[in-house]
Amino acid sequence: MRTEFRLSGSGGQGLLLAGIVLAEAAILDDKNAVQTQSYGPEARGGSSKAEVVISELDIDYPKATDPDYLLALTADAYRTYGKLQDKGLIIVDSSVALDPAITARTTSVPILETTAKIGKMIVTNIVALGVLGGLSGIVKPETLEKAVLNRVPKGTEELNLKALRAGFELAAQSQKNGEHHT
Amino acid sequence: MRTEFRLSGSGGQGLLLAGIVLAEAAILDDKNAVQTQSYGPEARGGSSKAEVVISELDIDYPKATDPDYLLALTADAYRTYGKLQDKGLIIVDSSVALDPAITARTTSVPILETTAKIGKMIVTNIVALGVLGGLSGIVKPETLEKAVLNRVPKGTEELNLKALRAGFELAAQSQKNGEHHT
Repeated sequence: MRTEFRLSGSGGQGLLLAGIVLAEAAILDDKNAVQTQSYGPEARGGSSKAEVVISELDIDYPKATDPDYLLALTADAYRTYGKLQDKGLIIVDSSVALDPAITARTTSVPILETTAKIGKMIVTNIVALGVLGGLSGIVKPETLEKAVLNRVPKGTEELNLKALRAGFELAAQSQKNGEHHT
Repeated sequence: MRTEFRLSGSGGQGLLLAGIVLAEAAILDDKNAVQTQSYGPEARGGSSKAEVVISELDIDYPKATDPDYLLALTADAYRTYGKLQDKGLIIVDSSVALDPAITARTTSVPILETTAKIGKMIVTNIVALGVLGGLSGIVKPETLEKAVLNRVPKGTEELNLKALRAGFELAAQSQKNGEHHT
């Protein structure tokens, strides 16, 4: 099965690294993965988009054409990419007001607020990664932990594991509440 | 014009970062860029491949289909991807023996040897980036420097600039010698 992720937000949020770690975790779990970062006019505007495609089979086309999971951390990203979703799940930060014109299944998750409580906004991407990993179930939690540890700077391991687990917890709450608006 | 780069070598050589920096430099020079990292069975074998496509126009297909520049830092990478080249330039590390069955235009460049002289093998990717930037002329040297500084860890700026400039120098020597075997 092919599963597509689109991670969107602002340039400083480190979503490229989140995409890389997700792809590398899939490999550790013996799947195939392609990670893509597209730059263009929108990148110059300060926005950011990374994509990951994961499959048990070979991946012919490396871009997400119809994402199963859209992460949107800013209102701009939500409006731009939310409109393109007709299926899949939109995971939008709870700081963003929902738009009734965007009709795909949506869950609003306090990613930025949780990161602020951790106290280091630099781990926003890792909290988000935990949410994506938890909601999709595409890789084992312990594999995602290992992949995070492979990529983060020395001395930041504890902080990043804390961020990842906070993301797992947000995913579990989202699923428990069943708060997937349609 | 669409220009395609394929960066291949072993897993520890940091070619993904080189691809990211090349793509980001292209953006700073007002071009469009897509950077792709594919993982699969070959990634589990310890090899690594990153691709960058740069264009003034929109980029429809994000993968390199017929690379203009193939960087190969290991014999495995050279054999695997060199065979696929029918046009373009192969930039192979001078530690790798040339294979007469690989007929595309080829320049042999002492990237690993130069990196060893600098004394930190971790900057192999930045030396290679300087070679690619210099030979392709796709971005301004000062833009590539800026893009490198945007991405490398604090405290390593001087080391990385030295590595990049060593790469520029290798590119200039390669062009001067005209040592492009066919």
